[in-house]
Parts: sequence; structure tokens; C-alpha cells
Amino acid sequence: MTRQRGILVVVSGFSGVGKGTIMKCLTEKYDNYALSVSATTREPRPGETDGRDYFFHTADEFQQMIARDELVEYACYCGNYYGTPRKYVEEQMDRGRDVILEIEIQGALKIKAKYPDALLLFVMPPSAQVLRDRLIGRNTESPEVIDARLKRASAEADGIESYDYILVNDDLETCVDELHSLISCQHRQVYRNLEFINKVRTEIKEF
Amino acid sequence: MTRQRGILVVVSGFSGVGKGTIMKCLTEKYDNYALSVSATTREPRPGETDGRDYFFHTADEFQQMIARDELVEYACYCGNYYGTPRKYVEEQMDRGRDVILEIEIQGALKIKAKYPDALLLFVMPPSAQVLRDRLIGRNTESPEVIDARLKRASAEADGIESYDYILVNDDLETCVDELHSLISCQHRQVYRNLEFINKVRTEIKEF
Repeated sequence: MTRQRGILVVVSGFSGVGKGTIMKCLTEKYDNYALSVSATTREPRPGETDGRDYFFHTADEFQQMIARDELVEYACYCGNYYGTPRKYVEEQMDRGRDVILEIEIQGALKIKAKYPDALLLFVMPPSAQVLRDRLIGRNTESPEVIDARLKRASAEADGIESYDYILVNDDLETCVDELHSLISCQHRQVYRNLEFINKVRTEIKEF
Repeated sequence: MTRQRGILVVVSGFSGVGKGTIMKCLTEKYDNYALSVSATTREPRPGETDGRDYFFHTADEFQQMIARDELVEYACYCGNYYGTPRKYVEEQMDRGRDVILEIEIQGALKIKAKYPDALLLFVMPPSAQVLRDRLIGRNTESPEVIDARLKRASAEADGIESYDYILVNDDLETCVDELHSLISCQHRQVYRNLEFINKVRTEIKEF
């Protein structure tokens, strides 16, 4: 089989559903994934490192990146800009690595418009109650922030129909393996294998 | 998660690629599959059993099945009719079992037209040479039959673009697991999970 270009994978999901942990486990367990680091204008939170968690930029710098078409998508959320730097995404895909973007639905839809063969995944909790319990259990946020997140989750949920597949984060290990399996399967799509198919086809015709 | 309807899976592939063995291993290893048995007007070969390998019918009986709309698809190949009985397929899907049809491309296209969410899989050999070696290695057919099969393979190959995914039968065990994985993944498609999604969504909005 010939080497394929990497697949662009968008992972979205409710706040508190465990996206960060899933991504961490996925990249630790499998080495064919490249996790895109977003650019943002929001302030770093305690413990966040520039270039690892986000690329932190001023609003002016961010506007320049937009003007130079250096972002494959960007969106404004809660007064701050978030965007995906193009260079890293394209380079990694060219190298055959599957690139994962953990972004919101606004960005996801822009990605799908620009890269029609991107894979859009939405991580669900096993139930609404579990999501709520996880948000409360974190104990890092005030009740007001939790309420705001649940409201946001409610709004995000309206967009699930635009995604290709859902993942259910009940057991973390299972969820990570299913994510890997979902992405691996897309490499078997006929249109991603035309080079190999045509090679075999031509050879069979020559017998 | 709510119980889903079974998925209709069409498996096609070149003569000699090992479809029969793959199906046998798949159904032995996993118990959620129902293998559809085709109806045909061709003569039974030595060792074939009615109701297990095929349902053997006269041309008259077959015509009546067509007239009564008892077949989800049928096709004529080499002067014989082959078709898929509807009742078994629908019953098994209603029970939540994934139904596998091992049929030719003509039938596959009719299935896709009638069941747009059917999954169409095409089994490829790792190379044309391997396919040829396997056909010759069987030692059950004359050189003329092998040549005829290769010619037919060549014609079948023109239709691969109509399929959704390819599978490569290099190592049997790997191929069977990939087939299982491909089908399992389709159960995660958003549109197959709307009942579950709407339940979680409604509950989140009620918090």
C-alpha cells in the first residue's frame, strides 16, 4: 500500500467531557498523531505554557496572522480569538501524520468547508447527568462558571448533526481506542487509496 | 446508548481474494453478524448444501420471487440468476444484527440505491501477483477458468469507486479484525445515534 496523506481530524465535545485527557492518552498510546496547538488572544491560565497549550498572541499579532492567511480557521469566543496555524497542519499531513484539532463547532464547520475530507468527531458523555457530575467534581470552578459551561454545552449540542461520528466517553481507555479505530478506518476509504487501487487494477488487466 | 438497527454491509472483491474465508472467520469470531444466503438458479456444486451455501431454485421459482418483490436485489451472471431474499435481511436488521451480503458489483449498486446507508466494502489482494498466485495455488480450476476469473476480476475492478472502503486481505486475521472494526465504526455515525443525542441534548438543556 502506498503512503497516504494524513487525515485532518476535528474533535469537539461538551466542556467537561474529557477531550483533553482523551487527546493526551491517544498521543501517548499511538505515535501517528500530531496534535495541533491553537493560537489565541486570551490570557494564559496558571500552568499553561506558550507553544504547548496555546500560542499566546496579542490581538494585533492575531489580526496579522489572519491578514496573511496563516490560519486554517479562527473563531471568536467569549471575547477572545482562537485559531489554527496552517503551517503545522499542512506539514504534518504531508508527512502522513493524522492531525487532530480540538476546536469548537464554529471552527469545525470552517474546517469542513475548506477540507471536505476532514473527519469531524463529537465526544458525548454517556449521559447528561454524568457530564454535570464531572463538571462539579472538578471543583476548580465556581457554580456560576459551571452553569455557564452547561449553557454553552446546550448551545454546542445544536451543532452535533454537522459532525460525522460521535464518541462516547464512558470508559477512557475504550474511548481512546475507539477514537484511534475511527481515524484508522478512514484511511481505508476508497478515494484515499486510488493510487493503490489503480496499480492493482492495471496489473490485473495486464495478465 | 439506545439499541440500533443493524447495518447492511455489502462485501465484494475479486474472485480468489478470500471473501468466503473472511466471512467464515468473521462470523466465528464475532456473534453480531448475520450472513445472508443468496438465492440462485445455478446448479449446486459438489459439497454445497441448500439453505447453507445458497437457496437453489428453478428459473420459474426465481421469476416468482422477483414478481412478489421478495428479493432486495438480483442479478444475472453467466446465465444464472443470483438474488438476496428480503425477509431474512429485514428481520435480522430489525433485531440489531449487521447483515452481510457477499455479492457482485451489479447487486451492490442496487443495494446502495435502495438502502443509501448500506456500507459497501471491496476486498483487495495486497497485489495483483498475489491474487494470481492464489487462484493458481487453489489447483481446483483449469487454466481456462483461472484466465476467465482474472478477466472477470479485471471487469469488476472498474466498479471499485462505487464502494465506500477497501479492505486488504494480506494477513487473514488482520483483515477480519479490520472488517469488524470498519462495521463497528459505522455504528458511531451521527445519524444512527440521533435518539441518544437528542436524549442527552434535552437533558442538558433542562439543567
